[in-house]
Amino acid sequence: MGFSLIPKEVQFFDLFDKQAEIITIAAAHFREMAEKGQFDDANIEKMSDIEHSCDLITHDIIDKLNRCFITPFDREDIYALAHELDDLVDMIYSVAKRMRMYKLNTVNKDMVQFALLIEQSSCALAKALSGLRHSKHHKPILVSCIEINRLENEGDHLRDTVIGSLFDNSTDPIATIKWKETFEGAETCLDICEDVANIIESILVKNS
Amino acid sequence: MGFSLIPKEVQFFDLFDKQAEIITIAAAHFREMAEKGQFDDANIEKMSDIEHSCDLITHDIIDKLNRCFITPFDREDIYALAHELDDLVDMIYSVAKRMRMYKLNTVNKDMVQFALLIEQSSCALAKALSGLRHSKHHKPILVSCIEINRLENEGDHLRDTVIGSLFDNSTDPIATIKWKETFEGAETCLDICEDVANIIESILVKNS
Amino acid sequence: MGFSLIPKEVQFFDLFDKQAEIITIAAAHFREMAEKGQFDDANIEKMSDIEHSCDLITHDIIDKLNRCFITPFDREDIYALAHELDDLVDMIYSVAKRMRMYKLNTVNKDMVQFALLIEQSSCALAKALSGLRHSKHHKPILVSCIEINRLENEGDHLRDTVIGSLFDNSTDPIATIKWKETFEGAETCLDICEDVANIIESILVKNS
Repeated sequence: MGFSLIPKEVQFFDLFDKQAEIITIAAAHFREMAEKGQFDDANIEKMSDIEHSCDLITHDIIDKLNRCFITPFDREDIYALAHELDDLVDMIYSVAKRMRMYKLNTVNKDMVQFALLIEQSSCALAKALSGLRHSKHHKPILVSCIEINRLENEGDHLRDTVIGSLFDNSTDPIATIKWKETFEGAETCLDICEDVANIIESILVKNS
Repeated sequence: MGFSLIPKEVQFFDLFDKQAEIITIAAAHFREMAEKGQFDDANIEKMSDIEHSCDLITHDIIDKLNRCFITPFDREDIYALAHELDDLVDMIYSVAKRMRMYKLNTVNKDMVQFALLIEQSSCALAKALSGLRHSKHHKPILVSCIEINRLENEGDHLRDTVIGSLFDNSTDPIATIKWKETFEGAETCLDICEDVANIIESILVKNS
Repeated sequence: MGFSLIPKEVQFFDLFDKQAEIITIAAAHFREMAEKGQFDDANIEKMSDIEHSCDLITHDIIDKLNRCFITPFDREDIYALAHELDDLVDMIYSVAKRMRMYKLNTVNKDMVQFALLIEQSSCALAKALSGLRHSKHHKPILVSCIEINRLENEGDHLRDTVIGSLFDNSTDPIATIKWKETFEGAETCLDICEDVANIIESILVKNS
């Protein structure tokens, strides 16, 4: 029986692909909820299941990492990647839960805009992660990372515009608190995508 | 004269036990304040002393860690444990200070409920930490970690219910801001307990 | 041709000095805005340029770190230092942007006070960083770290006093939300300075 290290290494890439797939599902589901203005029990339940499936894979990655002697790149980078990706799904879920809790069940065009940015960033992130398998081919990975950074900047700008006008026109302090928090939460999702992109870029540099 | 490494290793366990003891004292004091609705100067002063004694032990752990060549488990885990435990006491203290600052000196049954959860989680955490001395006996440590996770979920649910009804019935935006912040702070204490449980679980896996 | 490691090591110190210089410029610019009550487009634009120049140096440090085999002290400490210093400038910029977004263009004596504390802490931090070059001479570095801790405590106290009286006298919930957030953001700048001081202290212990 031969002894091969490569399958062990590839496993991490497969697991990251799974995490990435769950993230894109979470982002698509969030965007649908925003477009329909339906942050109701059934939709939150579905998001909770998505979040739970991401938890399982994250634990699987950490578990394999703790037992594994040889890793495709630095252990701390694998650890950081898995946790940031998990944080991303947690954050999407958390914003959705707040929308329900605050009964914000109207279609809000700004929240739809945030949801679209999160979905685009999640897709770029899935591409970058999948590219890590062939980390010597930097180019397409970097293109995705740059796209993630661009989307985060767009999100920053959107948040400032949206919260600015929220306060300018505020007559209902309670509604202002609710929307401020959920818009900021949505923007935080884009920040986490950028954190992932930064980890990926540092992996590229170390392995170049 | 013999040369023994074991005492040096045990020292860390003793120090974590001390940190855990201070945490349970802080949690008990917080629960008493909540039950009496007395977040007054005298009680905050006492909490400040508790927090300061935790600082001293945290510094002691970090200092010993920086000077020590052999550690009972990974340096970064010892570091992370010490800091998270310190963060927990800081957070309990911080919530108590906000309660005083906002003059929230009535007995609030939801805050009492949070305080009870924090106290239970702190006790479970002290048990788990004390078990690390015999980390080959996973079972009782894992039982405590599972309990900490359960309490965090309960806290999440409590926060959503409590803040949901706070906003549903809100007529006073300023009071809403105050209570929202302190309830969220209380729930963050349970999050930090869970972070500690996660570190402990990863230590178990690495040393299994 | 000789082969020298020392210049490579000194490079990090030079880069940290540059980061420190940018931080003191950012802090001085923030203090000027606060003193004039002018958080306007031109001033925010200038702060954005300062923040961008800090980004470039941070990337440069991380890049050199990833390519470098020999470092003057632990890689993770260099990494943590560079990131915390970058976070500090980001936070100062972020508070300034919020002041503009909320149109808080009056001279507020408490914000001026925070700005002065941030400027003092930034100067102490620049001194401590510059001292790392001669890390065997602990004394002056520790004096700066103690000063940074003292300023953070002062900031904590200021925040509690200021937010306490903000809520005591609140008639306008929207204005209360705005000021609470910006005061807390200003205090977070001092927290980050303290985080940097903690990293510096741990570097000293490890290299003593």
